[in-house]
Amino acid sequence: MAGFELAERAKVLLEALPYIREYYGRRVVVKYGGHAMVEEQLKETVMNNLVLMHYVGMEPVLVHGGGPEITDIMKRVGKKAEFVNGLRVTDRETMELVEMALTGKTNKSIVSLINRQGGRSVGLSGKDADLIVARKMEPGGADIGFVGEVEAINTEIIDILVREAYIPVISSVGVGADGNTYNINADYAAGEIAAALTATKLIMMTDVTGVLADKNDPVSLIPELSADQAREMIASGQIDKGMIPKVEACIRALEGGVERTHIIDGRIPNALLMEVFTNEGIGTMIVP
Amino acid sequence: MAGFELAERAKVLLEALPYIREYYGRRVVVKYGGHAMVEEQLKETVMNNLVLMHYVGMEPVLVHGGGPEITDIMKRVGKKAEFVNGLRVTDRETMELVEMALTGKTNKSIVSLINRQGGRSVGLSGKDADLIVARKMEPGGADIGFVGEVEAINTEIIDILVREAYIPVISSVGVGADGNTYNINADYAAGEIAAALTATKLIMMTDVTGVLADKNDPVSLIPELSADQAREMIASGQIDKGMIPKVEACIRALEGGVERTHIIDGRIPNALLMEVFTNEGIGTMIVP
Amino acid sequence: MAGFELAERAKVLLEALPYIREYYGRRVVVKYGGHAMVEEQLKETVMNNLVLMHYVGMEPVLVHGGGPEITDIMKRVGKKAEFVNGLRVTDRETMELVEMALTGKTNKSIVSLINRQGGRSVGLSGKDADLIVARKMEPGGADIGFVGEVEAINTEIIDILVREAYIPVISSVGVGADGNTYNINADYAAGEIAAALTATKLIMMTDVTGVLADKNDPVSLIPELSADQAREMIASGQIDKGMIPKVEACIRALEGGVERTHIIDGRIPNALLMEVFTNEGIGTMIVP
Amino acid sequence: MAGFELAERAKVLLEALPYIREYYGRRVVVKYGGHAMVEEQLKETVMNNLVLMHYVGMEPVLVHGGGPEITDIMKRVGKKAEFVNGLRVTDRETMELVEMALTGKTNKSIVSLINRQGGRSVGLSGKDADLIVARKMEPGGADIGFVGEVEAINTEIIDILVREAYIPVISSVGVGADGNTYNINADYAAGEIAAALTATKLIMMTDVTGVLADKNDPVSLIPELSADQAREMIASGQIDKGMIPKVEACIRALEGGVERTHIIDGRIPNALLMEVFTNEGIGTMIVP
Amino acid sequence: MAGFELAERAKVLLEALPYIREYYGRRVVVKYGGHAMVEEQLKETVMNNLVLMHYVGMEPVLVHGGGPEITDIMKRVGKKAEFVNGLRVTDRETMELVEMALTGKTNKSIVSLINRQGGRSVGLSGKDADLIVARKMEPGGADIGFVGEVEAINTEIIDILVREAYIPVISSVGVGADGNTYNINADYAAGEIAAALTATKLIMMTDVTGVLADKNDPVSLIPELSADQAREMIASGQIDKGMIPKVEACIRALEGGVERTHIIDGRIPNALLMEVFTNEGIGTMIVP
Amino acid sequence: MAGFELAERAKVLLEALPYIREYYGRRVVVKYGGHAMVEEQLKETVMNNLVLMHYVGMEPVLVHGGGPEITDIMKRVGKKAEFVNGLRVTDRETMELVEMALTGKTNKSIVSLINRQGGRSVGLSGKDADLIVARKMEPGGADIGFVGEVEAINTEIIDILVREAYIPVISSVGVGADGNTYNINADYAAGEIAAALTATKLIMMTDVTGVLADKNDPVSLIPELSADQAREMIASGQIDKGMIPKVEACIRALEGGVERTHIIDGRIPNALLMEVFTNEGIGTMIVP
Repeated sequence: MAGFELAERAKVLLEALPYIREYYGRRVVVKYGGHAMVEEQLKETVMNNLVLMHYVGMEPVLVHGGGPEITDIMKRVGKKAEFVNGLRVTDRETMELVEMALTGKTNKSIVSLINRQGGRSVGLSGKDADLIVARKMEPGGADIGFVGEVEAINTEIIDILVREAYIPVISSVGVGADGNTYNINADYAAGEIAAALTATKLIMMTDVTGVLADKNDPVSLIPELSADQAREMIASGQIDKGMIPKVEACIRALEGGVERTHIIDGRIPNALLMEVFTNEGIGTMIVP
Repeated sequence: MAGFELAERAKVLLEALPYIREYYGRRVVVKYGGHAMVEEQLKETVMNNLVLMHYVGMEPVLVHGGGPEITDIMKRVGKKAEFVNGLRVTDRETMELVEMALTGKTNKSIVSLINRQGGRSVGLSGKDADLIVARKMEPGGADIGFVGEVEAINTEIIDILVREAYIPVISSVGVGADGNTYNINADYAAGEIAAALTATKLIMMTDVTGVLADKNDPVSLIPELSADQAREMIASGQIDKGMIPKVEACIRALEGGVERTHIIDGRIPNALLMEVFTNEGIGTMIVP
Repeated sequence: MAGFELAERAKVLLEALPYIREYYGRRVVVKYGGHAMVEEQLKETVMNNLVLMHYVGMEPVLVHGGGPEITDIMKRVGKKAEFVNGLRVTDRETMELVEMALTGKTNKSIVSLINRQGGRSVGLSGKDADLIVARKMEPGGADIGFVGEVEAINTEIIDILVREAYIPVISSVGVGADGNTYNINADYAAGEIAAALTATKLIMMTDVTGVLADKNDPVSLIPELSADQAREMIASGQIDKGMIPKVEACIRALEGGVERTHIIDGRIPNALLMEVFTNEGIGTMIVP
Repeated sequence: MAGFELAERAKVLLEALPYIREYYGRRVVVKYGGHAMVEEQLKETVMNNLVLMHYVGMEPVLVHGGGPEITDIMKRVGKKAEFVNGLRVTDRETMELVEMALTGKTNKSIVSLINRQGGRSVGLSGKDADLIVARKMEPGGADIGFVGEVEAINTEIIDILVREAYIPVISSVGVGADGNTYNINADYAAGEIAAALTATKLIMMTDVTGVLADKNDPVSLIPELSADQAREMIASGQIDKGMIPKVEACIRALEGGVERTHIIDGRIPNALLMEVFTNEGIGTMIVP
Repeated sequence: MAGFELAERAKVLLEALPYIREYYGRRVVVKYGGHAMVEEQLKETVMNNLVLMHYVGMEPVLVHGGGPEITDIMKRVGKKAEFVNGLRVTDRETMELVEMALTGKTNKSIVSLINRQGGRSVGLSGKDADLIVARKMEPGGADIGFVGEVEAINTEIIDILVREAYIPVISSVGVGADGNTYNINADYAAGEIAAALTATKLIMMTDVTGVLADKNDPVSLIPELSADQAREMIASGQIDKGMIPKVEACIRALEGGVERTHIIDGRIPNALLMEVFTNEGIGTMIVP
Repeated sequence: MAGFELAERAKVLLEALPYIREYYGRRVVVKYGGHAMVEEQLKETVMNNLVLMHYVGMEPVLVHGGGPEITDIMKRVGKKAEFVNGLRVTDRETMELVEMALTGKTNKSIVSLINRQGGRSVGLSGKDADLIVARKMEPGGADIGFVGEVEAINTEIIDILVREAYIPVISSVGVGADGNTYNINADYAAGEIAAALTATKLIMMTDVTGVLADKNDPVSLIPELSADQAREMIASGQIDKGMIPKVEACIRALEGGVERTHIIDGRIPNALLMEVFTNEGIGTMIVP
């Protein structure tokens, strides 16, 4: 490596120092999903980023939903989607397939990737130590099966793992007081977990650049929003349907005491580091 | 409850005291499998037994292999068994289905059952914290796919969970240095884990009464064997083929410093308690 | 042991689980006295019960008054009872004999019995670490000598011993600010100690079945009373004179935050276990 | 107080500094007995000395035998001494009286005195936490009843109390594996306890000035002896019979790793402080 | 040493016990200065006193200003004092010389003296761990250079050193938010540090006997003053100019929760011990 | 910042990860000296580098000798160098000036710089907690005054400060058993401290590029040497005189168990980061 390059590298490291100092010993919840969960190279990069964040003193906690593994197993089994009043139904068989894919495959492959990068990781589902207690959702009174929402987050096992220097990886499966298994929207799960941990940051990895001022104009990115502005944009229909759960999860986290929440473009390599180690960050930041 | 019954009950509790004292603060590895993993009522009872063992001061660690969930998913997907030189092959697709069933379904349903009985449980696969490091098996040089044997057990995460009063539940999936996933025989995994923990006891739950003197005579149960006697019986073909891995796992555990190993009949309700809280125990005990 | 018997035994152990869970890590103060302190077989059984309670996670603390050792030493010395206005007087010589018998003999023989049963016990009098600070009682202004009542309980030494896994055994001797030794009624001492520890339970071992609805009818046992009901029964003279201190000690403990108090028949073998490990319990329960 | 006196006082305190530094955080076992246990003023002074030693950082442990309380109770009960082959017999009744006086009276009155001087003390007999395990002595095959010698010292409870800043006060009563109570010579008990604790110092309080060169000449005090010299003096009959157990206890302590042992005159007020805070010390020092 | 002398010595030690008990585990801030910082014999004695105070359980913290080392270096360098509006100016060069003398010489020679007396000491300036944060003083708007007053005291490093059994020695140099070095009056620094630590005592060592009723009459010592009385005496000009900072530092400490403050004559050998270990103390005590 | 730049920056951070992982929780002793101690911009950069190293999990310890402050004060005072047999003499006055400059000025200005960069630092001289115990050097029997060599390093205070997350900054002043102050060569002091701490790395900051194959050819840098090769080069006179102490300090550190030692060019900005965060490193590495 040439002397010039060495010098440049050192300079970049030094410029990261203020951010390292700021997040030292603080919790950062990352919602992992979308394209970054599909493409092999991106997956490795995300895990590498998390390991780096861990080593420079942050306490990252990863929450994920389903990746391509769910679609895959559903197809293999030949399971078709059912609808009740236009709502997708999660019957018992679907729930089982979802849980197997999420918790048995996606979760453990993330854990294994982190470990191979020199990190230390343990995977959890919401059933472990009753981490995510759920209750059945019945939107408009309709029975859409084993779809749940968060009733309580028991953070004890997360606290233990973080204190012991592990990166917890959590699949968004909940357990009901009735012992049933519930599928939980991973965005909301991440928001609730960030709130329960009073994390410093919640970062939602998506497949778009962030919240747009004009949902049809991809270059109309809004860099910063207050929670109130975000609520208004949802109320007035300005926010794209697919983006709504992400924004709501951010609002929920802010209500729970999280300082900053971010919706970033997970398709960009090293998006996490770009967000965490620069002043401008990337994507949209929603603050209290 | 009549006075007489109350008095009897108190007497039984008192008779358990010497066993409680003996195993106080000591680790007991239980290999869970067979019928006890299939029948709903038995499953609940096993978990209840574990919770009781935990509350009276033992430190139980559960290791399990596949239950009916594997067969079920294989059937649903329409996957057929392949053979190479008469050996069953675990190709990548099979390994994925096995992992999903074992780790995503069996493991978490056990965890959830324990939690519902008032215990505290966290499920692990061999990938979590690199708990079970595996290497590929090539019996007679044949490539039978993702079948592995234990190379190393990293007990740190077990130690942490036990110290924090959780019951660890471990699925017998290993991770290779190459990052591949390997299916590990659960009997051997249990033996290796017991050895790595220098557990006090290893208890193998099976679907037979124990080791038989005459493998064709179900009432010829041998109550106690030394490791040497067990080795001889294997060498001379006296032990039933299905029983061999269980006996070998016991021998391996004894070599690793475990004090007593037991092969018991998991079809009997409360078999664990019968073994742990009585002098005679049940099944076959193999000792150093 | 026959298979049937083994199965019964396991079933009984399992039925104890809810109670074990409920009292795990919680303090139970036992007032030891009466016949259970006299008969050798009963004494051993009580200590056995305490050791079992300790091993299944409760934190028992024993408080005792005088057994036959006091009567015995008084007789040997030829000391006669004196009375002032009809009240029994504890002069200095009597106090010395009482202290010697209580603290030097009764207390240490209990400690030794517990140790021989595999428990770990340390005996204390109210002088050790100023555990029971007393003030002189002068009922109706009469001077009846070294009879005292509790002024303060210093729980530090109990906390230390319990944390270090010992069963504290406490004789009801108090020390005055004036340095004098005072005889304290053991029922009241137990009530005050339970209150100071905010114990979960106080169990008074007596020689009757409990509180009777009709003090002349031994089968009129009242299974449960509120503190208010108990106060009324005392006020209206419905409670037998010998039972009053026990009921008052229970009321005092409840005022201090104890959850449940019990007056049980110590003549029944394993009465403690019967109370602690069953839903109905035995004797009379007085609750807030 | 005049300035001159203040200055003198400060000077004395400063001269104590080297000794305070030397014994900081180190254990000093004191055998308490003789006249210092009888005379009220002396008793208070001894306890005061112990409290001071505690506050300047030493860790004193007191071991005592019987004071006048034993003689007193024996007389009151009218118990006469019995002899077998010229040896005094401790029958069961005598043992009970001795234990009551030692543990119920002497021990607790010492504890109470220390507490009143602002110290923190807990009294123990050899039965507490099986502190002194004894075996029956049969000198020349004769059965002299419940007289024992030390078989083992379990120091755990002493370690706990010292760490928690209490001064342990130990009566020389032992418990046999057979559950029997044994009277133990307090000098030997102190020697064994000092050895088991690897104390820095053992100080024996006696009623003489120390070991004499000529046992009939009270001014022939030997200031320092080696263990070997002491052994020789015993062998050659130069040591007074009453002094032998004290010297032997010192030798035993030295064998167990104690650095210095002292036989001092407990009749002198503040003898402990004189020994501990001066270079010359008082009495006879026996060293390895 | 004669027996009589030994006895006297023991008596003096015992008389110190109540004071040792009272200050056990409590912080005592000592402002070191004046003649006691100049004369070799006195210096050693002060350090000896501190070491003794440490060993008997107090937690002394020493704060010092400049001794003869400052004058010395100024003279050697040939630096002359400058004045602005009659105020002495500390220009950058003077500040550097002051810092070097205070922190590089006075401070370390105190530390070394304590260590040689068997104590354990670490020296600190206000720059270490940002212990003394200062702001520039501009009396009457005049710029007198690098003279500062205390803005904040960060006690963390003191807490750590005291917990680890070191005696912290602090030079009264402050650091500004601007990175500049400021000279701080050592009396005020000591008062602020005592307040920040909520010390039990602040002792100011001076070259006079204390606060005088008549500032021209050296025998008119006032033994005790309330803070209000002290404020009034300052307001009415009754207090000598040189004494004012000392009295004000005491008042500041009292406002911050210190229990007692003392102005004593450091020219008397062992003045610290005289103050701490006697009832009358010496000098003037100012109380809330 | 442009997207491209952000991406580059993230990439550099990720490339640092293997080095961060390798040195996590490990001690790195840095000898600070030469030009890097003179030039303001370089000084800030070095401190910044140390703070970064601290935040990414290393445990840096800084050792420094004299900078321009010594020359400066000597000149101001008008002190001239003296020689004995051609050796420079450190008389008492010189030693005082050296100590004041080193410990009172250089040391504290480094501490203050680190604190202003967001680090946490405490300065120490060898006198604090007797960190550097020295003995007088008498080269060839000549008395050259207060020049010493290391006799012992007491690491306790370093261990405490590192554990409490401070960066210790140590000036190379030693204290003799005789209480005298000794000037210690800072290179050797750093080597001894690295050895005493069994540091992972020792980095010597110099004003040259490293060890040269031909001492007259500045581009003949040797990137790596074994300790044996280094010893030979010294023996054969191949190493420049000014470089010898640095190489010997490295050898001493390696003998004490340090894994790698480095002689780097401190004139290059961020030389520390370049060494620590790249594979090639810079300068000369000397290994066991």
